[in-house]
Order: sequence, then C-alpha cells, then structure tokens
Amino acid sequence: MKNAVGRDIPESLLTNGREVYQGKNYMDGKYMQKAAPKTRRYEKPQESKIVDSIVDALKAVGARSGMTFSFHHHLRNGDFVVNMVMQAAIEELGLDEITIAATSLGEAHDPVAQYIEDGKVVAIQTSGIRGKIGEVVSAGKLKTPAIIRSHGGRPRAIEAGEVHIDIAVVAAPTSDCVGNCRGIGGKSNCGSLGYAMTDAKYADHVIVVTDCLVDFPNMPASVEAIDVDAVVVVDSIGNPKKIASAAARISQNPRDLMMAENVAKVIASTPYFKDGFSFQTGVGGPSLAANLFLEQEMNKRGIKMGWAIGGICGPMVEMLKKGLVGKVIDVQDFDLDAVNSINQTPGHYEMSASQYANPANKGAFVNKLDFVVLAALEIDTGFNVNVLTGSDGVLRGAPGGHPDTAAGSKCCIIVTPLVRGRMATVCKNVVTVTTPGDCVDVLVTDYGIAVNPLRPDLIQCLDEAGIPHVTIESLQEKAYSLVGTPDDLEWEDKVVAVLEARDGTILDVVRKIKPVKL
Amino acid sequence: MKNAVGRDIPESLLTNGREVYQGKNYMDGKYMQKAAPKTRRYEKPQESKIVDSIVDALKAVGARSGMTFSFHHHLRNGDFVVNMVMQAAIEELGLDEITIAATSLGEAHDPVAQYIEDGKVVAIQTSGIRGKIGEVVSAGKLKTPAIIRSHGGRPRAIEAGEVHIDIAVVAAPTSDCVGNCRGIGGKSNCGSLGYAMTDAKYADHVIVVTDCLVDFPNMPASVEAIDVDAVVVVDSIGNPKKIASAAARISQNPRDLMMAENVAKVIASTPYFKDGFSFQTGVGGPSLAANLFLEQEMNKRGIKMGWAIGGICGPMVEMLKKGLVGKVIDVQDFDLDAVNSINQTPGHYEMSASQYANPANKGAFVNKLDFVVLAALEIDTGFNVNVLTGSDGVLRGAPGGHPDTAAGSKCCIIVTPLVRGRMATVCKNVVTVTTPGDCVDVLVTDYGIAVNPLRPDLIQCLDEAGIPHVTIESLQEKAYSLVGTPDDLEWEDKVVAVLEARDGTILDVVRKIKPVKL
Repeated sequence: MKNAVGRDIPESLLTNGREVYQGKNYMDGKYMQKAAPKTRRYEKPQESKIVDSIVDALKAVGARSGMTFSFHHHLRNGDFVVNMVMQAAIEELGLDEITIAATSLGEAHDPVAQYIEDGKVVAIQTSGIRGKIGEVVSAGKLKTPAIIRSHGGRPRAIEAGEVHIDIAVVAAPTSDCVGNCRGIGGKSNCGSLGYAMTDAKYADHVIVVTDCLVDFPNMPASVEAIDVDAVVVVDSIGNPKKIASAAARISQNPRDLMMAENVAKVIASTPYFKDGFSFQTGVGGPSLAANLFLEQEMNKRGIKMGWAIGGICGPMVEMLKKGLVGKVIDVQDFDLDAVNSINQTPGHYEMSASQYANPANKGAFVNKLDFVVLAALEIDTGFNVNVLTGSDGVLRGAPGGHPDTAAGSKCCIIVTPLVRGRMATVCKNVVTVTTPGDCVDVLVTDYGIAVNPLRPDLIQCLDEAGIPHVTIESLQEKAYSLVGTPDDLEWEDKVVAVLEARDGTILDVVRKIKPVKL
Repeated sequence: MKNAVGRDIPESLLTNGREVYQGKNYMDGKYMQKAAPKTRRYEKPQESKIVDSIVDALKAVGARSGMTFSFHHHLRNGDFVVNMVMQAAIEELGLDEITIAATSLGEAHDPVAQYIEDGKVVAIQTSGIRGKIGEVVSAGKLKTPAIIRSHGGRPRAIEAGEVHIDIAVVAAPTSDCVGNCRGIGGKSNCGSLGYAMTDAKYADHVIVVTDCLVDFPNMPASVEAIDVDAVVVVDSIGNPKKIASAAARISQNPRDLMMAENVAKVIASTPYFKDGFSFQTGVGGPSLAANLFLEQEMNKRGIKMGWAIGGICGPMVEMLKKGLVGKVIDVQDFDLDAVNSINQTPGHYEMSASQYANPANKGAFVNKLDFVVLAALEIDTGFNVNVLTGSDGVLRGAPGGHPDTAAGSKCCIIVTPLVRGRMATVCKNVVTVTTPGDCVDVLVTDYGIAVNPLRPDLIQCLDEAGIPHVTIESLQEKAYSLVGTPDDLEWEDKVVAVLEARDGTILDVVRKIKPVKL
C-alpha cells in the first residue's frame, strides 16, 4: 500500500491497527490509552539495592529469554554497558530470543552483531543503527525487521504500550545505593540523562549500572530510586574519550561557512526571527556553524534568542553564558562544554525524551520551536530526507530528533552540500524516507537555496529579503550533472527494517540489499 | 472482620479484593499492575493553551457529571482554587455526582460542604478533612463514605488505578502559556508542588489555574506542559497570608521544650544517631522544638545530619544554610523561609508525593529515614495513633505523612502532652487508628517516656543512656487519674469515612456520631 510519501508498504506489516503514513499531524486530537508497567512493591525499607554483578541484578529482576531490554545512548560511542549486559544475559545466563530496545546503537556495540548472527538477539528497536549491527541487519541476519524510530517516536511507542520494556538498564555516571541517578559527576560524566527517563518510568524492572557510587540522596535525580530495582557498581561504564568529544568545534571549511551564512540569512528573513525566538541546530559542520552567523544577525537586529533545545554542545553553552539565549533545555550532551554546564550554568536544564519530542503527549518542546537547522544524507525533490541508509542501501544512520524537530518547528531548514564525493545529495528519490517532505521547509546547499512549494509564505519572505532561490528540481539536475545519475539500488523482497513515522504509522521500509555481483 | 489493630471492619467494605489491615510491610514483594491515563494527542503544534475561564477549561477537557476532580493543598488554608473550580463545575455547568480527590481539604473549602449537602459532591477522597466539610461528613451527609489516605497512600492508590482522576487541577503560582508550572515566583508563591506531580501524570486531563503567567519555558517545571491540556489565568489563586505563615517559630513553652529535649536525648541514645543520619519532624510545638536540642546533641557528638525530608519550614532551612544538614528534600513548604529557599538554597530540592512516601513504589524517601518526630491527637496503649478524629468523634485532622514516616523510619517518636485540657492524650483505645501501633516506637510525654515493647533494642538503648522510661499503660493510667476516664463515644451504624492504611488495606472506619441528647 502506498503511503503519503509514495512508499510501498507491505500489507503484511499493517497488523494490529497499524497504518501507513498519512501526513503530518494525522493523529492530532486522537486519544491514547497509555500503558503502564507491572512493578514490585518495595514496602519494607531497604538500606541498599546494590548487588554484586550484572548477572546478580538480572537474576534479581527475573530476567528470562524472550524479554525486551532497553538502553540509552548518552555514553555514545564510549558505551560499555550494552555489551556488558548482553554478555551477562546471553553468555552467563544463557538467555535467548532477546529484544534490544535502545535509543541508539553504534560502533561501540559491534559485539552485539555476533549475538544477532547467533540468533540470540532476535529483534532490535532503535533510532541509530551503525557499524556491524547495521551491516548484519542489512544483510538480513536479524530474525525480525529492525524497528527504527525517532527520539520522539520512541517515548510515544513506549507510552502507547507498543514497546513493553521488561528490563531497562540505566548507564549512570553517578548513582546512590538505591538508584537515584545523575549524568553529572564521576569519571564517565555525560550530562543529560534525558533518554533514560521515559524508559525508567515505563519498564517493569530497572537496573542501574554505575562506576561512581555517591552518597544518598543523589539529587536532583534524573532517574529516580522509586523506579529502580537493583544497582550494580562496575569498574567502568564507558570510555570517557568517546562519551563526549573535547569540544564540538565550528567548521572552518569555507563551503560550510557559506552555507551557514545563508541559513542565517534565511532565518533572518522570516517573521519568526524576533526577540525571544527559539532554535535548535545539529552538530554537523554547516549546521553548527549557523550559530556563528545567527549571532551576527541577532546583533544586527538587536534581539536575543529566547531558548534553545536539543542535543547540546559548546557553542550554545557559550551563547547562554554570554546572555544571547535565555534558556537551554537539553536531552543529550555532545561535548564536555555541554556536559559540564547542564544543571550548573543558570538557565541550562535537563529534559526527558518525551518532553523533547514525543508527538503524542500534550505538547513537546519541538512543538514550540521556531527554527531547526538539520543535515541530511540525501534529500529528494519531494523534500523527503534520508538520514538512515547509505547510498549503498546499508543501515548506517539515525533519524534521532530529525523528524520530530522538522514536524514541530515553524521553519525547518536542511543544510547540505549538493554532492558528497561521487554522490548526489539532492536526488530524485531518497533511498529511505526518514523525515517526510511535508515537514521540511527550506533546503540550503552550496549551489543554491530551494523552498518547499508547500510554504508560499516563506518563498515570499526570501523574495522580500532579496535571497535568491531556485526549485529543488533544478538543484537535483545540477547534482546529477556534476556526478551523474545514480544507478538504482537492487533490493531483495525481504524487509530488514521498518521505518516508523513519529506518530507510529509506517513511513518506509528498508529491504535486504542484493549482493553485488562481481 | 477484626483487623491487625483490633478494629471491626464491615464485610460490606471488603469488595474488589480489598483486605483489612494485616500489619506493616504486608504487601512487600507483591507486584502491582500500574494504571495509566487516557490522554489526548497534541501532535499539531499549539502556540498557547490559555483559555478564557475555568468554565472554558472544563468544557475544553469534556467535564461531565460523575467525574473525579483532583486538587492539591500547597496553597493550604489560603487556597481559592478548589472553590472556584467547584463553583464553575456545579453552578455554571450544572454538573453533579462529583468526586473530589484532594491531597487535603480544610477550612478554606467550607463552601464545598454546601455542595455535599446539596448532593452535588457525592464522594470525597482526601488526607486532611477539617472545618465544615468534616462536620457534614461526620453528620452522614455525604452520599458515600469519605476515603481518608496518607500522603503516601494517595499516590499508591492513584498508581494502582483505585483512584482514576478525570481532571486534575493544578493551582500554580507560576505557569507559562502551555502549562509548565512552578511553585516559585508570582504573588501566591508556595514553594514545592510535590503533591501535584503524581496527579498530573495520572490524570486523563490536566487544567492549570495560575495568577502569574510567565515566559515559556517555565523551568525547571514541577508539573510539565506535556501533561497539561489547558491553562487559565485568574486574578488570584489564593490568599498569600494563609498560604505560608510568616515563619514557623520554635515554641518557647517550657513543657514543649522539656519534651523536645527528651526527644533529642532518645534520638542520641540510638545507634542511628551518627554522622549522616536522616530526620523528619513535624511543625507542631514540641516536634519543631526538637530541632533545637538535636542541634545541641549533634554538636556534642561532632556529627552532622545527612538529609532531612518532609513538609519543610524555616528552622530546617536554617540548619541547611549553617551546613548542619547536607540536603533537604521537600514535598511541601510550611512557611516563607522554606518557600523562598526550595530550588534556590543549594541542597534544597523538590520531590513528588510518590518519591516522598508511596509504599508501593521501589523505595520512597521515608524508607531511608532514621528518625521521625510526630505529634498525636491521641495514642493508645497499643501505640496506635489518632490524628484524624477529635474526642467528640468528628473528622478534623489529617493522617498526612504520619503513617508513612512512622512505617518507613527506623525510629518513630511520638511527642505529645499527656493530657490536653480535659482530654487524655494517652488512652486505652484511640477513637480512630490512623497510624498503627506496629509503626510507632517511642512515646515522649511531659509525664514520662514509653517504648513500644516490639522494640527491645530501643529499650536497651534508653537503659544504657540512663533515660528513664515507663510502660505506656502507666502513662495512660496517670492521664486518666488526672482528667478522669473518658466516656465511650456513641456511634450509629453508618460508616461516614474509611481510613485506608498506606498499603490500601482498611485500617479503621469512622461512623456517624450519635447526636448528643440534651
């Protein structure tokens, strides 16, 4: 069945009332019966919940084959916890038929690929999927199609009961003896624990793994002891060098800077650019560089930013400290400057994934966003964006907050070079639709700017500001003229991943790529 | 059927699996399927949720006859919101068959008594019940028995689905246009909003009523916009003079001071009195005065308090500022010193009612408490305490956190004068059991100290410290010798209130009092 972005969704996936994507805001106004966990009553006071090992913790919460384990990715590419827990569950306890429901998975989790090949891990639900896990899933080795969700789609699915978490594992930079966790302090400091918050509230059982035990009570707690069954103290939960890069530096690449300047000009041309406006940007080269030029436009106009959200990095913290932005609300930290600022710099707050981006609660932060600046692996002439699959069709990306911020913001700007190496970034049809075109407003490339025809108001803004723009088709043609028309990928029938829209409908599927014939 | 505190509970109340009280920690280890609300999906971005009036807000969330409305009591005796909402629902919208589920009700809510007499409000669930509401309920005028719960029992009942809140009303000292609420700021500043937090998460609909609209985002939010349907801005949500008394002063009454000194001596005699110990005290005369003598004992021993919880008032904030206590975690503020300190003095944090005292989560703060010092209206020779009904059998009190802290703490000390006027405080049988005797450890009166025989360890501590103590029976006899043996109250059969133990079992019932024959 074709959905609203023209993708053919197999009928076999449309079970239990699941629908295909119908356009943004399709679910608005519908009611949702929220799910809830089944939890143990700890009425008798306990002095401590500390157990000796991850195996003991798993035993204590009754870990069994067939269960769903949840993880969060604040330790990013430095995370040790997913592998430690899977090793304990599979190799020490002999469990199988395991579902991993993670907020993101990456190269740090390459050992999990083997558990997939061995048939021990049979289902994956995640936003990011990279490294060996992406390869084995793309090769069709996972028993069930991976389910890929945005950062807002995940808490929606959890709250709707579509994902039932049996055991949530919290990788905690600090915890006290009963499980009050913070992302601040300790040797594996990661800042915000926003993605773990929803998981801990909706899981039947919660295990905290920490490498820094602190005095009770560890306040203010991001994950609260009232939701935690067991605490395990390990030598190290992650590699600090890979948890937060030293500092996300603003690009010096002239092409990036030129695009970033144009992003700022587009922003400044709209009616939303006024004192108190709100903003989110990615950490990629031109996205992050937009901060710099935006500051210039703000100074010119004599206005300040009201608030910023997102994954946060140093340049935004700098703006907060300079008083250029009123408040920064933070679901994840990308560098040490951000890690060392959250809950410490006045005005820098933590938020949960649901507060950030859930499309089914009563209004996430993304719904109040004026501008978001985002990158893309590909964008097609329908303004559909792909941030998940490579040009070879292999899973190596992450929707993250991309579809959420695009849908919620008043002006979503994609910034990307027209071509990357021999690949056309602007194309006729993206390999996979991860953010639907009806959520994307402006495209800024190094060869020109295009505005989505769905937004005549923005076209008028650019015209009035004298900002030249072209059709997205002309950008696509230019790209093809530079690098040639890409060959169509060849797929087998087997669906290896289902791309869920943030509202729970099916946006796209990823099929098994046909092995290249040499 | 007789329960573990010897009270006869009518079989007719034991429906839907409800049991009689079986002793503390009876429910430990059992599993609970949590409940969850049915909520509207606000996928489409909204700039504002502000509506013109309470009536409009009630219409917007589909208020109907038969619904349950929840309220919290942080505005204490200054609250205007319960009356405003009931007036709108009953008089303007014509609703009836209404249940009020409040964290506490008092003299501020006297107008509700008339709605009870009119049969519009047919059920009351609360911790505190005072003033005219107490009188009409005691007189048997409420259609169904009032359900009285502790501050921990209430979130337990909500999370268990025993109370389903259709519409939670948050009285917010500050809110932004989409409902992020704080108790700090504005003209009706109340400090912590701890009791409202659980309600907002479990209600189908949430209405915020504020008299101080602030810029978005109002952070850190105690009640989050993601749970809020509508915001109403009114002239005033309460009378600031009655919200927080200027300062809870420590008693200068010599009898109170003598008892307080003995409380501190008892505390100092136990093994729990060591560096980092935890503490909660009430705001009554001798309870609050215990702070003073405790400080002296701490200085003598050269130790500091690790943390304190509770309803908080000035003297504890002073100890925090002096570095005598490490952290203060706060569910409610009793005076302006506390209101002006929470989230502002380093180490002074807010917590939800569930974090504070819920016996069915995975370990509330009360479960880690070393000492609690509490008052009593009556205590009997089984160490059962009554803080609900007066000596005339009329409802005019509140279990509050009394049963929760008594059950969770390692050492629960009741401090009360032996007699009040012509009434024996220590008696053979309390009018109503609100805190069961198996949770109470020591009684300090102006005529002597008694230790619960269930605690031979504490008896030994007092003996070793040379603190004289007597049997509770001898205190009761002394009391009766001073004021005479009280006449038994005469009751009709009709049950006007059910006293639920914190675990959901039935601890006691209050019957309709027989009219006095003149």
